[in-house]
Amino acid sequence: MHMAPRRLVIGAEDLGSLGEFGLIDALSAWLPPGPRTLVGIGDDAAVLATPDGRVVATTDFLLEGRHFRLDWSSAADVGHKAAARSLADVAAMGARPTGLLVALAAPPDLPVNWLMSLTSGLAAECARAGASVIGGDTARADAVLLAVTGLGDLAGRAPVRRAGAAPGDVVAVAGPLGHAAAGLAILSKAAGSPDDPALAPLVAAQLRPEPDYDAGPRAAALGATAMIDVSDGLLADLAHIAVASEVQINLRTAALTDPDLITAGGSTSALTWTLTGGEDHSLAATFPPGVRLPAPWRVIGEVGEGHGVLVDGHPYEGPKGWDHFR
Amino acid sequence: MHMAPRRLVIGAEDLGSLGEFGLIDALSAWLPPGPRTLVGIGDDAAVLATPDGRVVATTDFLLEGRHFRLDWSSAADVGHKAAARSLADVAAMGARPTGLLVALAAPPDLPVNWLMSLTSGLAAECARAGASVIGGDTARADAVLLAVTGLGDLAGRAPVRRAGAAPGDVVAVAGPLGHAAAGLAILSKAAGSPDDPALAPLVAAQLRPEPDYDAGPRAAALGATAMIDVSDGLLADLAHIAVASEVQINLRTAALTDPDLITAGGSTSALTWTLTGGEDHSLAATFPPGVRLPAPWRVIGEVGEGHGVLVDGHPYEGPKGWDHFR
Repeated sequence: MHMAPRRLVIGAEDLGSLGEFGLIDALSAWLPPGPRTLVGIGDDAAVLATPDGRVVATTDFLLEGRHFRLDWSSAADVGHKAAARSLADVAAMGARPTGLLVALAAPPDLPVNWLMSLTSGLAAECARAGASVIGGDTARADAVLLAVTGLGDLAGRAPVRRAGAAPGDVVAVAGPLGHAAAGLAILSKAAGSPDDPALAPLVAAQLRPEPDYDAGPRAAALGATAMIDVSDGLLADLAHIAVASEVQINLRTAALTDPDLITAGGSTSALTWTLTGGEDHSLAATFPPGVRLPAPWRVIGEVGEGHGVLVDGHPYEGPKGWDHFR
Repeated sequence: MHMAPRRLVIGAEDLGSLGEFGLIDALSAWLPPGPRTLVGIGDDAAVLATPDGRVVATTDFLLEGRHFRLDWSSAADVGHKAAARSLADVAAMGARPTGLLVALAAPPDLPVNWLMSLTSGLAAECARAGASVIGGDTARADAVLLAVTGLGDLAGRAPVRRAGAAPGDVVAVAGPLGHAAAGLAILSKAAGSPDDPALAPLVAAQLRPEPDYDAGPRAAALGATAMIDVSDGLLADLAHIAVASEVQINLRTAALTDPDLITAGGSTSALTWTLTGGEDHSLAATFPPGVRLPAPWRVIGEVGEGHGVLVDGHPYEGPKGWDHFR
């Protein structure tokens, strides 16, 4: 990580004329330090307070053409999505997001305005989560590449892992399911129309997911036995809990009906998006029976003996989720 | 971050046939957790012990074609270099490296053997530093891309920042200067011969730098007033200290003579490599006058009133260092 002191750069129009250190200066001026930032942008490494004595840490790529498209996403969308992708993983451990490191590679002809908007998106999503950007790195590349590392604090709680679900537990989710996948279908012109204002929230779910970061620590406080961020698809992600916990999960489609998705693509597409769509960054968790779950948590199934994830008691026939290499 | 439980994958020959979750399983089996790893590979995020109540955190890209070339570097070299690039920044704050997160994007036809060697290099360099790989991410890309995030612990010490050097301090370095640049010149056929066994250590310095991680915390304990990882070039990196500390730094070329570099390229190239070559990941620090500096620290200059970095009392005429966007 290489950072220099703050100095506003005015007049540079693209990254090449701004230069690496000009970019870093500008980023540091656009990204205010948070209350836990003991050393922020401007040194070899950041120093973040971890009063709990443990730090939750997770890293993710966002690559142009794979995780976002510049003709679909605004720069601010990319910033929001990058921060959300990482900080939702922090929340899924039951932790509060505290800091974000952002490595950014870009072509030299990238407009500085685009970078300012990206930075504003990163800062705004961090603020939504209660975190701040504490550092990063810059490099030159032919495409826009981001690698984001989220850090968080457990405030004395045990982390909520994937192993821990027990027969008799209920399965619940916080946040939408399949909305980001429906948005992708709309943008790809496979469903609906991007110009239909009624579908705009689904497109927004794809371009700028809004995880409920509070739901993670609240689930931990409610006694969640296992939790995961729904990023690869509900079935795929719950399968991780089923494997790690050595249990079977049964989902009830009656609890998964989503009128917005049915409007966009009919009931078959709606169910497919709900079960296999990724990138919603909603949280899925299991809770002991009898726990009264406040909103946004809603029960969608139960944990039993056995293995795998069933839908209404049967194996789901269809694509299960996303594998980056296949 | 997405991780699954451990399971050895045998017989898959490239990344496409191994698949994302196969890759993650394999990585987790090849990367043993460390003593501070409370939750390692296999969940939404890692949990690392931070007994100090603060965490040092830094992130860096290593992009194929920019930071390494597959025809020059072995997979193990890339793993060593990736870990070193990040963990040297941790040491430059005066902290001990504790954990590393590794995001890896690669083409599906990348051989699994290459990934195994990369992983062994990452694990070995982490072990040199006293750290361990605690988590990561995988994605598909047309080239090999790594983003590494190093974490570290200050053990109660104040972080050694760039601001803090005062007139009268001495400037010292731990580790070689210009060796990685000489190695690059040799590999590029601009100097020496890659087949000359006498030059092999310089080539190795480029392909597999070996930072002295202990030197960082020891410098902090000795009272270092400012410290930086020499990654962009000695003049460029000391300029960050000079600016942040509002001082002038004067280097003495008599203290920078390096017979290995003179053998490889003559005295003019040797001085250029020493002053402007990056990627050595040695540490440069300032210490109060009168501090007795043990090896590997060696004094190369002094801090005075003023600004900028001088060489034998004069501004250096020549390329100053590396800017990724110019």
